[in-house]
Amino acid sequence: MRRASFTEMNCSVAQSLEIVGEWWTLLIIRDALFGVTRFDEFSTRLGIARNVLTQRLDTLVEHGVLVKEPYQDKPIRYDYRLTDKGRDLWTVIAALRQWGDKWTAADGPPVITTHRGCGHTMTVEPACSECGEPVTRGSLRVHAGPGSRSDPFPERH
Amino acid sequence: MRRASFTEMNCSVAQSLEIVGEWWTLLIIRDALFGVTRFDEFSTRLGIARNVLTQRLDTLVEHGVLVKEPYQDKPIRYDYRLTDKGRDLWTVIAALRQWGDKWTAADGPPVITTHRGCGHTMTVEPACSECGEPVTRGSLRVHAGPGSRSDPFPERH
Repeated sequence: MRRASFTEMNCSVAQSLEIVGEWWTLLIIRDALFGVTRFDEFSTRLGIARNVLTQRLDTLVEHGVLVKEPYQDKPIRYDYRLTDKGRDLWTVIAALRQWGDKWTAADGPPVITTHRGCGHTMTVEPACSECGEPVTRGSLRVHAGPGSRSDPFPERH
Repeated sequence: MRRASFTEMNCSVAQSLEIVGEWWTLLIIRDALFGVTRFDEFSTRLGIARNVLTQRLDTLVEHGVLVKEPYQDKPIRYDYRLTDKGRDLWTVIAALRQWGDKWTAADGPPVITTHRGCGHTMTVEPACSECGEPVTRGSLRVHAGPGSRSDPFPERH
């Protein structure tokens, strides 16, 4: 089932999902962050139908998440590389990965991460951009911002 | 188009998307984090078909992301409340929101966030769980973890 477009929804979560909320798209980004650039490699790793993969890659190129760069002339073949906009999705992938590690990975995390700075096995944790302290959901307050077109917050029960 | 199940994919990103990668699901979570609990309010805010909403809510209850609690007997009506597992998705929503704010919000962010601890308008930034320092994608190394069933990393080109 095709859902309605989120374009008119005045919300950055919805706008992001308009670009990356398609089936497979976030797994394509995951593999691109791992260094995959070629159609056949995405196709093999994901087990995705070629027409679907083509469509997802084209959408990501159209939205400036990936760029296509020819690496061969006859026949022409492309590398698909992440742009800055695309690389910036690593925080989304990291958050999804860690949630899955915590709540779904019965055998332990399939992938672990080391911080080059301190050398420890670690997780990515949310911190305040201004004071650097760790933050929890309860330590944040949300307000209507400059791009708001209506009060985004419901009545609380 | 229904995609293949991600269940057999040995990856926490894929496992997370198995639960929250459906159309609408992350917007339901977003609204639940804003305090929405009732079917009619989700339906109105999202403009989603009632049968689709029912199906998405049932899936989230089945996976322990939401719990159903009766608030009325005749006819029976439920509040849908986030569990700890569900509330834990706030980092995913925050990452999607901030990516959208940065790359898609031409009029500025529809929603802004204040940190109660320091009082500043802020963004949530990734930090190391061990040393507390800010991290970037480039400062992290990924390795096969205890739950790995194969080398998850491709050859680099």
